[in-house]
Amino acid sequence: MVKDEFQFVADIRSRFASLRRKDTVVGIGDDSAVLDVGLKDDYLLVASDSIVDGQHFFFNIPDKGLIGRKAVGAVLSDISAMGGYPLWLTVDVGVPGYVEDRDLEEIFEGMRFLLELFSVEIVGGDTVRSDVLYLSMSCIGKVEKDRLVTRSGARKGDWIWVSGPLGGSIYGRHMLVSPRIPEARYLVINFRPTAMIDISDGLVADLYHILEESNCTAELIREKIPLHKDARSFDEALYMGEDFELLFCMDEKDSRRLYASLPNTRYKFYPIGKVLESGKVGLYLRDGLSVVPLGPRGFKHF
Amino acid sequence: MVKDEFQFVADIRSRFASLRRKDTVVGIGDDSAVLDVGLKDDYLLVASDSIVDGQHFFFNIPDKGLIGRKAVGAVLSDISAMGGYPLWLTVDVGVPGYVEDRDLEEIFEGMRFLLELFSVEIVGGDTVRSDVLYLSMSCIGKVEKDRLVTRSGARKGDWIWVSGPLGGSIYGRHMLVSPRIPEARYLVINFRPTAMIDISDGLVADLYHILEESNCTAELIREKIPLHKDARSFDEALYMGEDFELLFCMDEKDSRRLYASLPNTRYKFYPIGKVLESGKVGLYLRDGLSVVPLGPRGFKHF
Repeated sequence: MVKDEFQFVADIRSRFASLRRKDTVVGIGDDSAVLDVGLKDDYLLVASDSIVDGQHFFFNIPDKGLIGRKAVGAVLSDISAMGGYPLWLTVDVGVPGYVEDRDLEEIFEGMRFLLELFSVEIVGGDTVRSDVLYLSMSCIGKVEKDRLVTRSGARKGDWIWVSGPLGGSIYGRHMLVSPRIPEARYLVINFRPTAMIDISDGLVADLYHILEESNCTAELIREKIPLHKDARSFDEALYMGEDFELLFCMDEKDSRRLYASLPNTRYKFYPIGKVLESGKVGLYLRDGLSVVPLGPRGFKHF
Repeated sequence: MVKDEFQFVADIRSRFASLRRKDTVVGIGDDSAVLDVGLKDDYLLVASDSIVDGQHFFFNIPDKGLIGRKAVGAVLSDISAMGGYPLWLTVDVGVPGYVEDRDLEEIFEGMRFLLELFSVEIVGGDTVRSDVLYLSMSCIGKVEKDRLVTRSGARKGDWIWVSGPLGGSIYGRHMLVSPRIPEARYLVINFRPTAMIDISDGLVADLYHILEESNCTAELIREKIPLHKDARSFDEALYMGEDFELLFCMDEKDSRRLYASLPNTRYKFYPIGKVLESGKVGLYLRDGLSVVPLGPRGFKHF
């Protein structure tokens, strides 16, 4: 048994602190790494994501294509969280004896929809024997330097937004990841989000990632949090992972502009709370007149 | 059971042929992908490599650090085969219950030597639960546009070279991969290799990859092939995988220059054969007066 992933990332960060490169803009710990490869206007983004049979999907689902769809969707979602767009993908697959040629073809065919939608090309990978089926994807994308959004820019007074209703993804929707790339691009081109993340661990856990990196305290307004029709309880909206919606902060002026623009866009964004203060990490849930603190517990794959 | 990896790569190539991007210089099927991200003088390189417990290493080795060393070494070797140098790494790890915190720390610590040697930074990754221990690495590097070497440039008259003695890696050396990045850089800066690959599947199998991509027939000279002291038979030099030496072709003029330079360099390169003709794929082994055809069989992980 090993410690949780958040602790693990912190370990790697400090273990290899001396190996930080000057051309690394954002290293391990955000949704994607941000690399300055020498372009005038753009940074490169790199994200990496693994899904494993029995953990993130079950191989015995009838439509094996959903496995490929989920793998691509999850890693593209990491690129969207930085405000960027995806370009290239590498795919490592660990193939056990129980996976037939036809299954593998279905898995890859399941990647097509998102690859075509976003003009992403598979340019490499590795297929190896393994006792368990896994897909490990790396995605390379780009973002304009002045449109980059990390987890660390949230400030007092920001509104907290989410790109769609939450909860209940585990009952099936988590396999049909629709990475919010158009939504993220709409935001960074027209507004100035101060911090952004995709909801993979759950609203509360992922909001805590922003609050920790930004050193802020926030409150969520219970009645403002949009509940997905698949959700069976409000707690699922708070704590269930793999919604793959964008969670972002934006200052009040921009937030009012975004709110005013909603009737004229094809996208839906929901204001769900506010950043109360900078300088201290914390989170509260306001429910009518009652305000309760929320701890950082969430849905952990690891 | 699935078909072999070479067939599989061919399938992906044709399946997603319509999804080829214009800024992809070399897509799936070479040691690294070559990407034109918009830099004046450089291409970006991306390589991906997986190693799995029971296939590429055994978790029960006393020094778990060697697992990390091998994972990094193998993917850096893919970058070297294009004539380039590595910059950033992402590391996905599938962690089963039998792996303790301390083991994982040793595995990561085992990466340090190569990371420091080549100034490579780990900028991302994913840790997930899995029934089997695996490491899936992606490496991003660069190569100057005029120094890029692929598998497809071998021509009639080229000499065939290897960067070190071959065979017997499986008896332990395969865990201590030393990616031939300085050697590759020496070659591309001072000479003009026409085709290059790193030997992971075995001399014959990997030479066939060059010959197929270059559409050439070649002969190897048995007495010229340097046998590693670990090798237990000559066949191991031909067919055993994971030597992680560079195998490359170079025209006669450059080859004579390289040969003449050998006494003055710290590197060792061995001429082991010649490209006999272009337009047809084939391989022969010359042993004194006898010449025998060699089929493309090699060491397959998959």
